Amino acid sequence: GTEDIGGFGALVDLKKAGFSDPQLVLGMDGVGTKIEIASKAGKFDKLGYDLVGMCVNDVLCYGAAPLAFLDYYVTGKLKATAASSVVIGVAEACAEAGCALVGGETAEMPGVYGPEQWDLAGCCIGAKERHWANIPDVASIAPGDVLIGIASNGLHSNGFSLVRAVLSSSGTELTDKLPWNETSTFADELLKPTKLYVKSLLPLLKDSKLKAISHITGGGLIENVPRVLPDGLTAEIDCASIETPEIFKWIQKTGNIAPSEMYRTFNCGIGIVAVVSEDLEAYVLHHLEQNHLAAGVIGKLTKKQNIGSTTVNLLNPEANFTLAEVAKPVPMANVAI
Amino acid sequence: GTEDIGGFGALVDLKKAGFSDPQLVLGMDGVGTKIEIASKAGKFDKLGYDLVGMCVNDVLCYGAAPLAFLDYYVTGKLKATAASSVVIGVAEACAEAGCALVGGETAEMPGVYGPEQWDLAGCCIGAKERHWANIPDVASIAPGDVLIGIASNGLHSNGFSLVRAVLSSSGTELTDKLPWNETSTFADELLKPTKLYVKSLLPLLKDSKLKAISHITGGGLIENVPRVLPDGLTAEIDCASIETPEIFKWIQKTGNIAPSEMYRTFNCGIGIVAVVSEDLEAYVLHHLEQNHLAAGVIGKLTKKQNIGSTTVNLLNPEANFTLAEVAKPVPMANVAI
Repeated sequence: GTEDIGGFGALVDLKKAGFSDPQLVLGMDGVGTKIEIASKAGKFDKLGYDLVGMCVNDVLCYGAAPLAFLDYYVTGKLKATAASSVVIGVAEACAEAGCALVGGETAEMPGVYGPEQWDLAGCCIGAKERHWANIPDVASIAPGDVLIGIASNGLHSNGFSLVRAVLSSSGTELTDKLPWNETSTFADELLKPTKLYVKSLLPLLKDSKLKAISHITGGGLIENVPRVLPDGLTAEIDCASIETPEIFKWIQKTGNIAPSEMYRTFNCGIGIVAVVSEDLEAYVLHHLEQNHLAAGVIGKLTKKQNIGSTTVNLLNPEANFTLAEVAKPVPMANVAI
Repeated sequence: GTEDIGGFGALVDLKKAGFSDPQLVLGMDGVGTKIEIASKAGKFDKLGYDLVGMCVNDVLCYGAAPLAFLDYYVTGKLKATAASSVVIGVAEACAEAGCALVGGETAEMPGVYGPEQWDLAGCCIGAKERHWANIPDVASIAPGDVLIGIASNGLHSNGFSLVRAVLSSSGTELTDKLPWNETSTFADELLKPTKLYVKSLLPLLKDSKLKAISHITGGGLIENVPRVLPDGLTAEIDCASIETPEIFKWIQKTGNIAPSEMYRTFNCGIGIVAVVSEDLEAYVLHHLEQNHLAAGVIGKLTKKQNIGSTTVNLLNPEANFTLAEVAKPVPMANVAI
């Protein structure tokens, strides 16, 4: 459906791409301060994949299929090896998400950026047919709906300001072996890219099997899940039902971070939360398993008890974490508006 | 045609926007090192307009109407006044270009960016009906076609690395009055935003009155005009027919820059070059005049004389400039790939 028209633009033929009455969903994002970890480690190949993941997963939350992607790569001094590493990651993720990498902008801005400094942002254009389900289908979301948590691939792209603070205060180097896995380093673990959920979830979304999905980014379960819920509901999430990857346990313990802050900063092992009616729970879980996605019910929706109550009620937040006597609250960073 | 769906995405309904068989044209761009001038001057209100102009004009070159826009605003420390200044400029230009500002990403990245450091990029989604003219219509472009130059608004967003070098070497301050206009400063002149050509040119493009348009950005007339031309043609441009704004004359004289380098770095007063068949010249010029655009014939296409000849043949390059005994060549900067 796409055609290179040379120069700085690209043509996307919606009819050739299979759409007859398309609506577009657009998403722009960056990779945040994770870029600093990649720079320090000198590993650029995963960041591009991450960038596409962040944008594509956002578009997916509105029930749209990713169609095209553009990237903005900026630095003080263009280095061919680093730049091509990044673009290869972008292209790989685009191929996996089924969207065309139609171009972008590579800018060298000496003076504005330092020679070693760089940044990366992307824009995803997604499309949906009018007759596909409108996601989130807020009107249909009701008490009794279950929340299915789908595993993340690790940190994805959020919470890295806090990660850097914990690394620094604990004297941990990126080249250090992981305490729980001697074959891997902190750099390897921290740079694992954002998981792509498009191919597995899009058929369920088109087919109205999911009422909503929430992409768990900055703000964690606590801030992202309420975004897809109507007023008057509470998401009861039982943290004991979440399988928490070791990296989150290490960050929490090493940084002595309150578990509730962990769930407000990181995905803590859950990349996507799907809102599903109870009678479709088994169907959806079976589909996810067939698509090799680790998933399970992590909670349900209930009627809000009183106006002042929080929209997410975390049960057993300490279940997966080590508690010190006094856990420190941590200031927020990496704002996304 | 657009609807806010909350969160991080936005829905664009192509049918509601008036399209029945749409093709998309996508463009991503930044504002380049002009950002440094805005930071130094503490004036942020024009940069957003500039950003939209750069993206929208690129999309226009493929005969598409701008439909939606997203911006990426990143800084080390978010300052509400500067950020809102920028966004107001973005919104103003979007309104003028007839496209919806559907969102974007505002990122605060302490550690990656310094507290005073920031950057701005944007993505424009344009659409065209299949039956609208395909621009550039390379197959129809032939010897005898005329080149109509449409005035720029000043520097637009390109060549600022060189501008900063000239300001610095000559000890010129942004607060200095312009030698040719005491009511205005260098900051005012340099920060004039990119002109928007959408409303005036789109009707001509849809109606097949223009065979191609070239947006004169980094690389000037010399590098941008050939991008829309088929092989085997030379663009003969008579610089004596261009009305060169004073700022370009000042830069050339103060920096002692070879005129040919001026035409390879700056728009030198021409924001858009339109390729028009000779019999439509009067019609197009009349339309542009009615739309209050200063325009005139600046050259014509001829058959290339020999394989080795340049694609743009600049006649009288020194016509508008002051020649020193030996003009210095200047290294290129602000690469766009």
